[in-house]
Amino acid sequence: MDINPLICRDIVERALVEDIGSGDITTLNIFGNDHAGSGLIIAKEKGIIAGLPLIKMIFKTLGDDLKWDQFSNEGDQFRSGDVIAEIRGKMQRILTGERVALNFLQRLSAIATITRAYVEKTAKYDCLVLDTRKTTPGLRVLEKYAVRVGGGVNHRLGLYDAALVKDNHIRGAGSIKNAVTGLRKKLPMTAKIEVEVENINQVREALEAGADIIMLDNMPPGTMKEAVGLIDGKALVEASGNITLDNVESVAETGVDYISVGALTHSVRSLDISMEIR
Amino acid sequence: MDINPLICRDIVERALVEDIGSGDITTLNIFGNDHAGSGLIIAKEKGIIAGLPLIKMIFKTLGDDLKWDQFSNEGDQFRSGDVIAEIRGKMQRILTGERVALNFLQRLSAIATITRAYVEKTAKYDCLVLDTRKTTPGLRVLEKYAVRVGGGVNHRLGLYDAALVKDNHIRGAGSIKNAVTGLRKKLPMTAKIEVEVENINQVREALEAGADIIMLDNMPPGTMKEAVGLIDGKALVEASGNITLDNVESVAETGVDYISVGALTHSVRSLDISMEIR
Amino acid sequence: MDINPLICRDIVERALVEDIGSGDITTLNIFGNDHAGSGLIIAKEKGIIAGLPLIKMIFKTLGDDLKWDQFSNEGDQFRSGDVIAEIRGKMQRILTGERVALNFLQRLSAIATITRAYVEKTAKYDCLVLDTRKTTPGLRVLEKYAVRVGGGVNHRLGLYDAALVKDNHIRGAGSIKNAVTGLRKKLPMTAKIEVEVENINQVREALEAGADIIMLDNMPPGTMKEAVGLIDGKALVEASGNITLDNVESVAETGVDYISVGALTHSVRSLDISMEIR
Amino acid sequence: MDINPLICRDIVERALVEDIGSGDITTLNIFGNDHAGSGLIIAKEKGIIAGLPLIKMIFKTLGDDLKWDQFSNEGDQFRSGDVIAEIRGKMQRILTGERVALNFLQRLSAIATITRAYVEKTAKYDCLVLDTRKTTPGLRVLEKYAVRVGGGVNHRLGLYDAALVKDNHIRGAGSIKNAVTGLRKKLPMTAKIEVEVENINQVREALEAGADIIMLDNMPPGTMKEAVGLIDGKALVEASGNITLDNVESVAETGVDYISVGALTHSVRSLDISMEIR
Amino acid sequence: MDINPLICRDIVERALVEDIGSGDITTLNIFGNDHAGSGLIIAKEKGIIAGLPLIKMIFKTLGDDLKWDQFSNEGDQFRSGDVIAEIRGKMQRILTGERVALNFLQRLSAIATITRAYVEKTAKYDCLVLDTRKTTPGLRVLEKYAVRVGGGVNHRLGLYDAALVKDNHIRGAGSIKNAVTGLRKKLPMTAKIEVEVENINQVREALEAGADIIMLDNMPPGTMKEAVGLIDGKALVEASGNITLDNVESVAETGVDYISVGALTHSVRSLDISMEIR
Amino acid sequence: MDINPLICRDIVERALVEDIGSGDITTLNIFGNDHAGSGLIIAKEKGIIAGLPLIKMIFKTLGDDLKWDQFSNEGDQFRSGDVIAEIRGKMQRILTGERVALNFLQRLSAIATITRAYVEKTAKYDCLVLDTRKTTPGLRVLEKYAVRVGGGVNHRLGLYDAALVKDNHIRGAGSIKNAVTGLRKKLPMTAKIEVEVENINQVREALEAGADIIMLDNMPPGTMKEAVGLIDGKALVEASGNITLDNVESVAETGVDYISVGALTHSVRSLDISMEIR
Repeated sequence: MDINPLICRDIVERALVEDIGSGDITTLNIFGNDHAGSGLIIAKEKGIIAGLPLIKMIFKTLGDDLKWDQFSNEGDQFRSGDVIAEIRGKMQRILTGERVALNFLQRLSAIATITRAYVEKTAKYDCLVLDTRKTTPGLRVLEKYAVRVGGGVNHRLGLYDAALVKDNHIRGAGSIKNAVTGLRKKLPMTAKIEVEVENINQVREALEAGADIIMLDNMPPGTMKEAVGLIDGKALVEASGNITLDNVESVAETGVDYISVGALTHSVRSLDISMEIR
Repeated sequence: MDINPLICRDIVERALVEDIGSGDITTLNIFGNDHAGSGLIIAKEKGIIAGLPLIKMIFKTLGDDLKWDQFSNEGDQFRSGDVIAEIRGKMQRILTGERVALNFLQRLSAIATITRAYVEKTAKYDCLVLDTRKTTPGLRVLEKYAVRVGGGVNHRLGLYDAALVKDNHIRGAGSIKNAVTGLRKKLPMTAKIEVEVENINQVREALEAGADIIMLDNMPPGTMKEAVGLIDGKALVEASGNITLDNVESVAETGVDYISVGALTHSVRSLDISMEIR
Repeated sequence: MDINPLICRDIVERALVEDIGSGDITTLNIFGNDHAGSGLIIAKEKGIIAGLPLIKMIFKTLGDDLKWDQFSNEGDQFRSGDVIAEIRGKMQRILTGERVALNFLQRLSAIATITRAYVEKTAKYDCLVLDTRKTTPGLRVLEKYAVRVGGGVNHRLGLYDAALVKDNHIRGAGSIKNAVTGLRKKLPMTAKIEVEVENINQVREALEAGADIIMLDNMPPGTMKEAVGLIDGKALVEASGNITLDNVESVAETGVDYISVGALTHSVRSLDISMEIR
Repeated sequence: MDINPLICRDIVERALVEDIGSGDITTLNIFGNDHAGSGLIIAKEKGIIAGLPLIKMIFKTLGDDLKWDQFSNEGDQFRSGDVIAEIRGKMQRILTGERVALNFLQRLSAIATITRAYVEKTAKYDCLVLDTRKTTPGLRVLEKYAVRVGGGVNHRLGLYDAALVKDNHIRGAGSIKNAVTGLRKKLPMTAKIEVEVENINQVREALEAGADIIMLDNMPPGTMKEAVGLIDGKALVEASGNITLDNVESVAETGVDYISVGALTHSVRSLDISMEIR
Repeated sequence: MDINPLICRDIVERALVEDIGSGDITTLNIFGNDHAGSGLIIAKEKGIIAGLPLIKMIFKTLGDDLKWDQFSNEGDQFRSGDVIAEIRGKMQRILTGERVALNFLQRLSAIATITRAYVEKTAKYDCLVLDTRKTTPGLRVLEKYAVRVGGGVNHRLGLYDAALVKDNHIRGAGSIKNAVTGLRKKLPMTAKIEVEVENINQVREALEAGADIIMLDNMPPGTMKEAVGLIDGKALVEASGNITLDNVESVAETGVDYISVGALTHSVRSLDISMEIR
Repeated sequence: MDINPLICRDIVERALVEDIGSGDITTLNIFGNDHAGSGLIIAKEKGIIAGLPLIKMIFKTLGDDLKWDQFSNEGDQFRSGDVIAEIRGKMQRILTGERVALNFLQRLSAIATITRAYVEKTAKYDCLVLDTRKTTPGLRVLEKYAVRVGGGVNHRLGLYDAALVKDNHIRGAGSIKNAVTGLRKKLPMTAKIEVEVENINQVREALEAGADIIMLDNMPPGTMKEAVGLIDGKALVEASGNITLDNVESVAETGVDYISVGALTHSVRSLDISMEIR
């Protein structure tokens, strides 16, 4: 998993402490320390798998002698009934970790799956699917990872690594030109500047101000196409606002470089993945 | 908000550090320290509000001189267009906190809203709506709070405060009777024991074993009704498994005391609530 | 040890940092890195052992190549002179960990030992010994564990997992009935409600209100017996208040289900257990 | 309180999270947010008060609008029935903080009280009472503070701020001289070196080696007196080992500078101090 | 200070705990709680001030009733003898915080001062001074802030917010083109790609591959000038490697956009700033 | 490394999170998980090595299958071109850890190197080189360790483990005698008392007051010699203030026991040590 393992470990340990608290009073009082078993992670519907290295880390945190076998790789498609992975060892550890593991796996796989759906809808266009900052508090690095697994591309990590000039910033600075010029002198050399625009006039202003990225916010496809023509490769173009699986293709057709979809992370229906104990 | 404020503060600070990182490079470089403004939290669809005390805490963390006015109370219904609250003070702070605040508010209000829908469907029965452990890792106390705001009731907090005997535990202990009897001697005096059963025979066994709560897992309504008659008030009865807004009323009719719904927390579509800056 | 290992590790690491600080300046400057030795954990008086898995964790944290041999199991009785365990490896690590290890072991074993004394006094009655919330700040999960090792049973973990209605709550709610009825609607389904009562009238009220547990606070044995008869199995009964090894048997005779003893944890005389280095 | 407040705050917050967890379900569900009250901290036996600033910090952490009045100062003597302090404000906060506050206050006051007893027994000698490292894991700075409140003096903070050469170190270094000489070159300039000795020969060796402090371990009073004469002010002298209130005066008579008593902290019987709510 | 205050607070609290530990035993035992005083922060040599908001935070953390007056603003030049700020209140707090405050202020002001020196040397060229990742572990956000105060511009924050393709990456990818093309598909949309080149051929390759920034590593000025001509505004140009105050102007003359200087942060001579107590 | 490994691990993990953040986007996207390599740590100038165990810990934290070989030991002298250590394993891990590892190693080795220079200048005198509290916030234990590696001796760890009476304390207490006498009764038995003096009169007062250590602050060598004669072994003597490599020998000649040098840690020019990847 291409994430800093120190950050994953922190998230995993917090989740385990949250659920297990002082101890799993059902399991610890029923199973002896030497009772072994196996847990099969099985899909109950189809989708794209994401989060397996994290699940392995969860179980290894509970008992480093647990054995992990994985029958799929990150990003693989699975169907209902597929056995995705198996964990073997002390029954106590397997049952105690089951719910936390599934909570992560169901959510991350759901994000990868919905991302993949958007990616496939736009596959024939030269256009990439982006996430947003509408992520679950505390889980952003994982959710952005799941978007990558699904074939999407990440927008900025947070407020610190790129500038996004919105209407309030424009008003605050006086004009798009003022905003972009002022930022260019103060930002880290490596930070791109994106400007959110609402009409063709603003597209022109953003271009003249030298924006690296221009975000077309809630524009009708016709206007988007006009904007793309005007920009003509001199800045990257992102389409944003109320994009759904139904209308994403018509947006992709306009020639924009990126389409950002808040729903990839802010409205996730957990995939049905379960653990069968043997 | 009836949650330990020390735990809320920890969650809020982590979320702010996650999003803001070393600093909001757009806002800090455009707005002067003395630029004041106001942010109106406005609903874009209808629902039940949950999380306002947390939102206030978020902004107060960023600047304790910010002014907060609230026009709704937790659990109030709102309609599209309603102004729910206003935050006034330094524009820098308002814009920097906007996204984190909305990420929490949209999610918690969505949970309260869907919970309320289940509660209304079952209102004429003597039956309560329960959450599960299928919560977002790291946010359980907040999500369980939102369920309460919506009119639901919480199931156990985690693996540590109540026992839930499932099929694997029954197999491990040899029988329901063994499991319950063994646990009763070892658990904290205050911990209830719930047994998950799949058929009428198991209902009988659980009753005889002295379970405090019997969970009817994925039973057809007819069987549930039979189970409820059999149990006859000698234990609490929870219905569980694939319950939706469409079928919840038919489950409530069976006379169970509680209906648990994983979808209250595991598949949340964020409500559309936005901030308008002035 | 049936406790969440992540919580134990946190407690252990804090204790080690507290004592060792930047480093053990005596030991590190006298013993070379290759100087090996052995430490025998030896009892200097009789008692019940509790905390060995924690002691092992302490030494393993200091050096994962240390060898640990254990000649007793948790809950075993030991006599003065008994060798309880041995730790072998780098002398530096053994000497550095000695004091922290003994501080834990002496305290936890003392709790198990005093608990066992109460358990034995009440063994012929159908009555269990309970702990309280009068634990050492920061060590509650360990101290409650030691109570279990000694044969006792735990009361609630804290203010969050069960309700205990005391006189102030009764006054606040207006009556026992109001308090219990109000709580029943709002508490997690899994939370029991206990009511603390001071006289027979209150026993009746608590019974009628449907309390799960009734705590008889500081009652004379005669009154307790009357209360037990009145309750007649319709609620669990806990005796509480100024119970000592001298009077515990007379309390057990009254027929209560549980006797809670604050002194199990709030007034612990450390057992004399030492480490002999070879 | 002459302790780093950042360290106190950390200990206090951990204790509150441990006890309150996600929330005080009894109190929060019975008392409204606007229900005010008062809590009187009242002694039920006599002793020396220690920890009031910490108790104030506990309640202020729960609600910074709580009012605190203090009728005693740290180190004051109190008798049964004395009102030591009062906390006024939201009933919710007072009841929620009560147990944690008392757990600290009862323990710290007990330590100050027993320390004072030893100090009084030795008051007419030029001899000070010392604590040891036998403190409760996680609470050392507080317990050492309580010893100071009681009139005692602290031994080293931990393994990092002074050297204490014990038998194993002597054996490891080959001789007391080797140990002390070797340490002197490597320790911080500010670190004193203490040597634990068991007989008069070792006293001589320690003196010759230039020890700053010589600890007479478990010596009979006669031998101690001989040792004190021999040392003759050229090093500080500490008596240690099985010292009780009964024999401490006979030890003080020998002329030692310090007497260390493990029981000040390792075997604390909590003082009976309660809170009365109005 | 345009840094996330939650991050500053964390750094400040760790520094105070590191230095103060359990308490300032000299000051707390000499000054009473009511002894007031004043501390003047006075320059003993000339420089550029940076870090005053942090110093204020340090003293406010120790006592929120301390009064802070500031006679300079961040980035102001000061001369030997200038009074930069004054802190008034409890002597205990002022003396306890003095060293930690000065340790930060001397280091951050030194960074701002040396940065300003480089900025002045290159002021007449259209060329900015950059920092590097050669910062003090744990203090990067502060040191990068001090560079901004001195008039410099930040390079990337860390390994996560921009790509920098060095020789090993080029070898790993097979060619500059492979590296850049591969990264472009996988990186966040907002991440720029910089390529480090050693000769004119590599400049050409980087340009063709579409690098956003080209770093000229250790090139002689003549070659740099050639590279700048070749790049001709199609990418940003950074000069790097062994740049000193003596040669920085000759580098700026070559027309590069940025000059990065590791010595801004990796070799800081603390400025002589002291506190005078009154 | 004679430091508490729990403290080192905390520092190392914070440094890695600071630099790597959510992940090394360059390296992770270019190198496959199975791409192996080797990194040679090579000196580019001469000096004394310090910090190798920390560097090993850094790489082991990133991947515990990395192989570490060390060709020098702590405190060894190296020359330009010397290969100091080698790390082998996954290229991803080696490149990701390179910068953090070098940032530590360059700084700690620089401290050891400059310390050694002072130690050599004073080698023929019976005089030791001391550090101060002018260390980098957050890194004190490591920097004091590096001073030891270079042959220096540590002054106190912080404000908590020894008393240092400066001019303000003297003024606060009324006199040196008051200050020392007052402190002696209240400090831990193991804490030494040092008094900073400015003239011969104060030397006399400090001696009479019984100071353990007398610090001669900014005295001319002649006055120092007089002070040393006066003290005559009855207290340790430390020279302090504006000591450089040029004048240190003339200070050592005066017969002082210790010379403290703030520049050992507050003005460190990182040594040129690099990593060559193969």
